[in-house]
Amino acid sequence: MDTLEILVYNGSMNDDKLTWKRLSSKPIYETRIFSVQEVNKIFSNGDKANFVQIEAPDWVTIIPELPGTGENREFLTVRQYRHGSGKVGMEFPAGTVDPGEQPARTAARELLEETGYTAAELIKIGSVNPNPAFMTNTTYTFLARGLQKVADQNLDEHEYLDVHTETYKNLMRIIGTEEYHSAITVQAWHFYLRYTGDIG
Amino acid sequence: MDTLEILVYNGSMNDDKLTWKRLSSKPIYETRIFSVQEVNKIFSNGDKANFVQIEAPDWVTIIPELPGTGENREFLTVRQYRHGSGKVGMEFPAGTVDPGEQPARTAARELLEETGYTAAELIKIGSVNPNPAFMTNTTYTFLARGLQKVADQNLDEHEYLDVHTETYKNLMRIIGTEEYHSAITVQAWHFYLRYTGDIG
Repeated sequence: MDTLEILVYNGSMNDDKLTWKRLSSKPIYETRIFSVQEVNKIFSNGDKANFVQIEAPDWVTIIPELPGTGENREFLTVRQYRHGSGKVGMEFPAGTVDPGEQPARTAARELLEETGYTAAELIKIGSVNPNPAFMTNTTYTFLARGLQKVADQNLDEHEYLDVHTETYKNLMRIIGTEEYHSAITVQAWHFYLRYTGDIG
Repeated sequence: MDTLEILVYNGSMNDDKLTWKRLSSKPIYETRIFSVQEVNKIFSNGDKANFVQIEAPDWVTIIPELPGTGENREFLTVRQYRHGSGKVGMEFPAGTVDPGEQPARTAARELLEETGYTAAELIKIGSVNPNPAFMTNTTYTFLARGLQKVADQNLDEHEYLDVHTETYKNLMRIIGTEEYHSAITVQAWHFYLRYTGDIG
């Protein structure tokens, strides 16, 4: 790996100096999908303050690639009402890692539950923090290949979603627009393009 | 715009049928950067349930492109401790839209505060919801061109960050890896590549 060309123009601090250390934390509120914590921290200069963070289990997003090549190859996506945005939107299948579960296992489980498909291959193509400013968790992206329809949907309580197929060509055009309005779906698609060598 | 090739395999519901309607909501907790609401909703089949959503002001991410062409052109990025991930990470400059503020104005303000640069041009290159499952807000991505260093950093209370320059070539390699571990930064970079025609 070559050396990063990093130029610092305005006071460089090493990681220790930039890091706030946790002194104590107070649970504020717990939901089915995350908990809110208020954490008291101290900075390297002695500055103290409270910060709020959202502790959530890790997430997975699955990109289910159907057989085929070129711009007309197809992918499964899901269309569902989203409680945050208050809109019906399209995304790749996704879900939450259960306690003790391996993320690849979550990917297989959510793919089956949401679409009724199994995958011969689940390839981890990247992981990031959904929002390092206040989220504590990791979101993994898996590419699912060798798909086979084996069952009907088996959705969680209060979960209703439609499954669609979209071509590569369409996804290149509509991901990140009104219909596919999730930052996580854009990030997952970017990882797919990086993995397949279509960018970079 | 050509017609989307959408195939439905398992029961298609129109938007009205997929939508949960809000009956009432209860504020749970308010922080400097978001508030948590518990919302009681009803589905098209009469099913009722409570859902938690995080209401936050809109966000902006700015991609500050320095003059230059090809793989060696450079961008400003910021290196800072992130309270959610508990790690020092690199991202594009970003911030929160103040009440009544236009997002482009926020982009100009945050760019100046975090890096000391002004931009001759701020181009909105996309917007998405950071996480439609429980976030209510929109995150805008702006491309900043015609950069000029006019001031020192002017950071918010408890904000400490270093400014770096990175080449296009490096960013293509390291965005979405350990050092650039934010999904929002990956999404913003995807919008940049789409805008410049490097993908799609």
